[in-house]
Amino acid sequence: MRETLTRDELFSISSKEPDLETYKKIKNNWDHLSKPIDGFGDFEGTIARIGAIQKNSEPSLSSRCAVIFCADNGIVSEGVSQTGKEVTFQVAVMLGQGTSSASTLGRQVSCDVLPVDIGIDSKDLIPGVIDKKVRQGTGNFLLEKAMTMDETLIAIGTGMNLAKEMKDSGRNLILTGEMGIGNTTTASALFCLLTDSDPKDIVGRGAGLSDDGLKKKILVVEQALEKYKDSFPDDKERAFEYLCDVGGLDIAALCGLFIGGSIYGIPVVIDGLITAVAALLAEILVPGCRKIMIPSHAGREKGLTGVLKLLELKPLITGNMALGEGTGAMMVLPLLDAALSFYKNASTFRDGDIKEYKRFK
Amino acid sequence: MRETLTRDELFSISSKEPDLETYKKIKNNWDHLSKPIDGFGDFEGTIARIGAIQKNSEPSLSSRCAVIFCADNGIVSEGVSQTGKEVTFQVAVMLGQGTSSASTLGRQVSCDVLPVDIGIDSKDLIPGVIDKKVRQGTGNFLLEKAMTMDETLIAIGTGMNLAKEMKDSGRNLILTGEMGIGNTTTASALFCLLTDSDPKDIVGRGAGLSDDGLKKKILVVEQALEKYKDSFPDDKERAFEYLCDVGGLDIAALCGLFIGGSIYGIPVVIDGLITAVAALLAEILVPGCRKIMIPSHAGREKGLTGVLKLLELKPLITGNMALGEGTGAMMVLPLLDAALSFYKNASTFRDGDIKEYKRFK
Repeated sequence: MRETLTRDELFSISSKEPDLETYKKIKNNWDHLSKPIDGFGDFEGTIARIGAIQKNSEPSLSSRCAVIFCADNGIVSEGVSQTGKEVTFQVAVMLGQGTSSASTLGRQVSCDVLPVDIGIDSKDLIPGVIDKKVRQGTGNFLLEKAMTMDETLIAIGTGMNLAKEMKDSGRNLILTGEMGIGNTTTASALFCLLTDSDPKDIVGRGAGLSDDGLKKKILVVEQALEKYKDSFPDDKERAFEYLCDVGGLDIAALCGLFIGGSIYGIPVVIDGLITAVAALLAEILVPGCRKIMIPSHAGREKGLTGVLKLLELKPLITGNMALGEGTGAMMVLPLLDAALSFYKNASTFRDGDIKEYKRFK
Repeated sequence: MRETLTRDELFSISSKEPDLETYKKIKNNWDHLSKPIDGFGDFEGTIARIGAIQKNSEPSLSSRCAVIFCADNGIVSEGVSQTGKEVTFQVAVMLGQGTSSASTLGRQVSCDVLPVDIGIDSKDLIPGVIDKKVRQGTGNFLLEKAMTMDETLIAIGTGMNLAKEMKDSGRNLILTGEMGIGNTTTASALFCLLTDSDPKDIVGRGAGLSDDGLKKKILVVEQALEKYKDSFPDDKERAFEYLCDVGGLDIAALCGLFIGGSIYGIPVVIDGLITAVAALLAEILVPGCRKIMIPSHAGREKGLTGVLKLLELKPLITGNMALGEGTGAMMVLPLLDAALSFYKNASTFRDGDIKEYKRFK
């Protein structure tokens, strides 16, 4: 089944508000645990936010799944990656077999992995990978728009549908992930267009680019800006157009996943730069959508912290990771598990003798 | 049994070098996993460091214990804490009962907790808390030196002995923790003396100080600097003297724990500001000692990142925690577990088809 979302329908979606009362209740419970006020730091608010999104003052992280969108990007033919585009297919095969990085880490942190082919440049079906291919890789955006409006809408709709499927199957947390050679270039170009940023401040080495490769990548993004920068009457239209111009099918589908998270009330964890740019897009297209987003790590890509700041989110892990496939998002799970377990099991002031350990806010 | 370490003996301890060959071997193994080079970020080097300290290319984190030194600080009578000093005793009781924050979190992250009374201001033995009391709280350092030379040496020796006991009982990772009202004040004063820092840049709110309380705390540290700042012929002597002047029994014992970690080849995880200042002391007293230190979180205290920088360490977690009792150090455990599990279980290039996914360094 293809999603038949129209652009007007997309632009008219409203975000759902997390439940403020639940947030307050959980934060109040934290304050009654026998520890200094706010002692568990940003984890306290994160657990409260998750509860508010789930509308449950006993939040749960028991069933979580990383959705890994795999896609090829036409811009790779400009030499912006150290790695050939055939690697997208090869890693997708490993994702399907359960032998990729995300599969290995997922087993450790009790996270299921759902690899989705949203646009790998191959006709072959990949065992274990859901086939939602919109087209075989995007166009080279220096020569043509990366995607048509319809293709972009189909990819966004696919992400939204998957969020609904997650909700229907009882998931309480979605993690975002992506895999596709060239997608730090598409994400950087899109971010620069969305925020009027200088590519030199944003473009990073992706999965390990040489100095010459980095120069080339910056040049490509600069050319994209020259070609596509325009004025628009409306922020949503502007964001959507830029997504079609230089984005990727993975970014569009991830954007839909965040939007779906808002509609269906599931917290969605941001991974690295690509997923964060998709999150920013979702927030522009469906304002308020960011309220269901959970940050994870600061990554190695220069742009990531900036994107998170725009979303008013702070990463919980530094770690300098640059692995992709949702692995950075997965790393935050054991921290959330620890924080949630603490929240549910720590002594309260009623249990102990301590009256004065509670401090001023 | 009391440790009878002399000052000369302390000053003549040499640190043991972690095994560079093991480090290189582990880093090389990481490079052969089917992921971008350095993709697992700082966790790769951390696992390699742990192996080098353990002298084992198959590092293990299977048996870990948080040593929580509990002590009172005479400076509390100057009003530097929102909380009365009796809370030190009360939380120690909870540590002994297994109902404190560290106990709860330790169960979640599979970390044993060893609470040690190194100087609680009480005559009572506390069930479940190891009695290594040196004295009942330190002196108020605005009126007198916090500790005598002998007391300081006994506390350091206690930490060193505990590291040996950990080694003998098969532990492969030690976590540091502390609990004692007033110990962000002693740690801040000591840090300012050691590094010639301005108290205004270092002193933070501890477990939740009001604006007025913060002003008072800064003033107290400024007075300490005025009283004790001196010139010394030797860095070790200087550090040791300042420790006696304004330090705490917890800080001295933690310092010994790090030194012991170096002598006996066990990695020791730094928690927050207080443990980090103890780590810095250990590095001054036994240069090279820092090589067995593992950073955890960035905490909320202003000074912490600065101390870690001096030790050439970067925190792995942000999170803004300010709980004490080694809880920040504990939070890094599930991340290290995930990284180690990935290291041991991820596919290698030999398993898969991918030749080109390995990138330039």
